[in-house]
Amino acid sequence: MTDRYAPSTHSPARAPAGQPARLYHTPLSPFSRKVRLVLAEKRIEVELAEERYWEQGPELFRRNPAGKIPVLRLDGMLLAESQAICEYLDETVPSPPLMPDSPAGRYEVRRLCAWFDDKFNAEVTRPVLNERVWKKVQKTGYPDSRVVKAGLSAIKAHVDYMHGLLEERRWLAGPTISIADFAAAAHFSCLDYISDVDWDRSDLVRQWYATIKSRPAFRNVLADQMPGIHPAPHYALLDF
Amino acid sequence: MTDRYAPSTHSPARAPAGQPARLYHTPLSPFSRKVRLVLAEKRIEVELAEERYWEQGPELFRRNPAGKIPVLRLDGMLLAESQAICEYLDETVPSPPLMPDSPAGRYEVRRLCAWFDDKFNAEVTRPVLNERVWKKVQKTGYPDSRVVKAGLSAIKAHVDYMHGLLEERRWLAGPTISIADFAAAAHFSCLDYISDVDWDRSDLVRQWYATIKSRPAFRNVLADQMPGIHPAPHYALLDF
Repeated sequence: MTDRYAPSTHSPARAPAGQPARLYHTPLSPFSRKVRLVLAEKRIEVELAEERYWEQGPELFRRNPAGKIPVLRLDGMLLAESQAICEYLDETVPSPPLMPDSPAGRYEVRRLCAWFDDKFNAEVTRPVLNERVWKKVQKTGYPDSRVVKAGLSAIKAHVDYMHGLLEERRWLAGPTISIADFAAAAHFSCLDYISDVDWDRSDLVRQWYATIKSRPAFRNVLADQMPGIHPAPHYALLDF
Repeated sequence: MTDRYAPSTHSPARAPAGQPARLYHTPLSPFSRKVRLVLAEKRIEVELAEERYWEQGPELFRRNPAGKIPVLRLDGMLLAESQAICEYLDETVPSPPLMPDSPAGRYEVRRLCAWFDDKFNAEVTRPVLNERVWKKVQKTGYPDSRVVKAGLSAIKAHVDYMHGLLEERRWLAGPTISIADFAAAAHFSCLDYISDVDWDRSDLVRQWYATIKSRPAFRNVLADQMPGIHPAPHYALLDF
């Protein structure tokens, strides 16, 4: 593996100048979707290039020595890690702002992004999608229904937690929409594709998702299709 | 679990005013150490309170609904998630600066923090420490030598990657010391406690660690003792 980590792959890795912006992504990856939503909200147009990251090809490691997606080719660089990418986009394309002005406000956005990208992902998104999508796509086995059940049980506490936040706040991290809302919505949209969200548990969470889903930035994500895996009937409906 | 996520636990959770700054931490947690190092570098004095997070007591969830350490009580708030805490500290206590001035520089710090806290942790720190420390401390079984071996094999590629970075840069993310150096050093110091770093693999990485280890901020971390688990003889030596 050593040669994959050669100095030429250091990031911000350089990309040849003059190439169009491009996002290397995977449909139903919550991290790819988070970056796509932030790009669209900022009205930054990018080409999408689908990456089969599980095949671990040399191009994947050339673009990102960590061997992960998404990777964004922008401004002559190859950018990796969804949170680092989204904060870079917010700092370089300030309108509309997706981070609050105060340090405490920014802290809260970062805490909640970690909540969804780390805790929610480990307890819900990764196990459920792995069993119900990736095992089929990557031909690595059959779904284990106990794992799916544990993931769908774990989602309840998260919806309750979000409900509590939304009782006090217009958006998850405060009075204005932020990267935290797009991080959370990215996870929920992946689960919603395979119909694994119990929207009856909280009106506030359903309303939050309906509002964010109706933003123009969401259109492109809702048009995704995974070959062989059909979306739930309500997946692209704005009234669900 | 629902009651753990009650609205009163929302973060930035409020702590009674006038209480001294306190860090709820666990020795040999790389995330706790990262925050301790940044606090010390900023000369912010805090009490340390040891948290046995694996016992999952109600106080742990009251302080941080995610049920994780470290948690920093500061400025009348209870702050969680090491990266969010460290960036908050850098924004509110600007001297010495631990984030670069440019968006591309800050991007690179965040990418590398994610590298160590996500990838390095999953491939090296977590499996090695789980087998060699936490199973003993938490009485959950005996170490699996295959897991330890795989973790120690994975560290090589990371050291090579860091070597490549340090051929071009004074510090990991660029010309100035940053949160990324403390994130990486936190992981290495945990592994070094149990003597699991092959320092002969790269002179540049050894020199980087010797330099960061000799900073006053590191003294407190080097004084840690885990009951029943003795540090390697060279652990606290500045010349190793």
